[in-house]
Amino acid sequence: MERELLDWLRARLPKSRRTVLGVGDDAAILRPTPSKELIVTTDMLMEGVDFVLAENEPELIGRKALAVNLSDLAAMAAEPVAAFASVALPNSMSVETAQRICEGMIALAEEFNVELAGGDTNTWSGQLCLSITALGETPPGRAWRRSGARPGDLLLATGAFGGSLLARHLHFIPRIREALLLAGDYDIHAAMDVSDGLSLDLSRLARESGCGAVLELNAVPIHDDAYRAARIQLGEESSDSLSPTAKSVLLNSKNRTPLEHALGDGEDFELLLAVAPDVAERLLVSQPLEVQLTRIGRFLEQPGLFADLEGEIVPLEPRGYEHGGG
Amino acid sequence: MERELLDWLRARLPKSRRTVLGVGDDAAILRPTPSKELIVTTDMLMEGVDFVLAENEPELIGRKALAVNLSDLAAMAAEPVAAFASVALPNSMSVETAQRICEGMIALAEEFNVELAGGDTNTWSGQLCLSITALGETPPGRAWRRSGARPGDLLLATGAFGGSLLARHLHFIPRIREALLLAGDYDIHAAMDVSDGLSLDLSRLARESGCGAVLELNAVPIHDDAYRAARIQLGEESSDSLSPTAKSVLLNSKNRTPLEHALGDGEDFELLLAVAPDVAERLLVSQPLEVQLTRIGRFLEQPGLFADLEGEIVPLEPRGYEHGGG
Repeated sequence: MERELLDWLRARLPKSRRTVLGVGDDAAILRPTPSKELIVTTDMLMEGVDFVLAENEPELIGRKALAVNLSDLAAMAAEPVAAFASVALPNSMSVETAQRICEGMIALAEEFNVELAGGDTNTWSGQLCLSITALGETPPGRAWRRSGARPGDLLLATGAFGGSLLARHLHFIPRIREALLLAGDYDIHAAMDVSDGLSLDLSRLARESGCGAVLELNAVPIHDDAYRAARIQLGEESSDSLSPTAKSVLLNSKNRTPLEHALGDGEDFELLLAVAPDVAERLLVSQPLEVQLTRIGRFLEQPGLFADLEGEIVPLEPRGYEHGGG
Repeated sequence: MERELLDWLRARLPKSRRTVLGVGDDAAILRPTPSKELIVTTDMLMEGVDFVLAENEPELIGRKALAVNLSDLAAMAAEPVAAFASVALPNSMSVETAQRICEGMIALAEEFNVELAGGDTNTWSGQLCLSITALGETPPGRAWRRSGARPGDLLLATGAFGGSLLARHLHFIPRIREALLLAGDYDIHAAMDVSDGLSLDLSRLARESGCGAVLELNAVPIHDDAYRAARIQLGEESSDSLSPTAKSVLLNSKNRTPLEHALGDGEDFELLLAVAPDVAERLLVSQPLEVQLTRIGRFLEQPGLFADLEGEIVPLEPRGYEHGGG
């Protein structure tokens, strides 16, 4: 099946545009754009942790595997160039399912002009595991980092938060276009994408910057999915439309308010941005993105994470999914 | 455990030399050497397929995960720059074991001056799965490919073949130094590393070059391990020193001669090189590498794989491990 899948892939993938040599040799050859810096990220997705094969369209699983990597490139304001996908496929998987996983990657790759330039396909007795490494480029010194926030900066966010488990974690749009527009026109001090939870990821951003952060709780945009998740937990809305896993996770965890979902659910893949107040003002007024930009907090000297609840500043415990990214 | 491992890794990894920003942000930042081409390869290793956790030192498993990628860079004559490692660790694994896997990678990375610049650490209910993406550089147009062999070229190989299962598949030295020396001083038409089996990989090299290949069977250097493997299969040597898996594979497969082991075992990670006869002659006489270079065949117009057995040319069936690399 591996040989069959690889032959299919070699015929299926579009002709190389940006790479000198793509799938089929011992390695791919790329010609980096002169004077650009190279941004590299890698993320691995696993059955039962990041998706459930039996419950999700294979295309969406392949799409997510690439999308989380593109979200990391967006968090650095990097223009995507190429991606490399390694997969461990269960022995029992049909070639058709494997192809559908690839189709999901290919469609997203085409949407964001990323070349799938190599990979490694394997079968084993274990469960589905997908690892993608994505390469992007930035002008020298222009990549956003987590470490650049300064006390006094305001915290802006794209989009809305919470309830991604309902399905959005498979459908989200990596904020590549938004990041490239912002990086070109505005001075962004620091950035990060929200994968593990708004409050947890913000606490990391602040820590890397050597400062603290206050989340203005009343300002956090709460996604419709977060309201739905809360209603489903309260039994006020049917859980029939949910996948068995989403249903089980929601109904077997503590009831949470929509705001709590927004602060801790994760997999929103929205951008957190630290910007000087004057730049923030311009951004909030002009709203240059297709998605809403909202002021949701500010950075301060005192390390730690805090909540601003109508003027009262209290410590806020970071919540989210604890694991090792990087 | 993921957070603990990541904190340990950030402290353990040597300071960045070649990257602008390493482990800890959303992605790494690299500054490619001006005018060089970028070579990218990715390989995934899985429990039960590429190693058996219970039978092998964790360091050797981590080492192998990086080594197979470096071998791919060697096959392109690329100088290694950076590597990115994603791992799915079984929930039951101790932090100590995970650290030992990392130590194996780190030691090999230091030996070959590769920076471990990023990764993704995860835990799951599944088995150990490691995916590494390695980046290297070559002067423009100088990367070796599989497609450059020409009829009339001679086929040279580094080292000896067969029996890697006895332990060499975990210990082999990627032929980076050899490749860089050869690429600097000699015109190599095509190259490939032997991962799946000498005869199978040679048939692929020939096919990618649009020609055929003849293996001169009497000239193939047979590794001591291949002789041992054959003796163990015949019951002429004890299998006591073998791992349970190696023992089971050898004793439950058809008895093979040492030559058959050399032609089909794979995981030798030696280099196959297609070179013009005059260059081959110079190489064979001067032997510029620490490892022996041997003429083991030649390329011809007629597509296919053939054996030269004391002057008689007969079709040779490619043997080895069929999966999808690339």
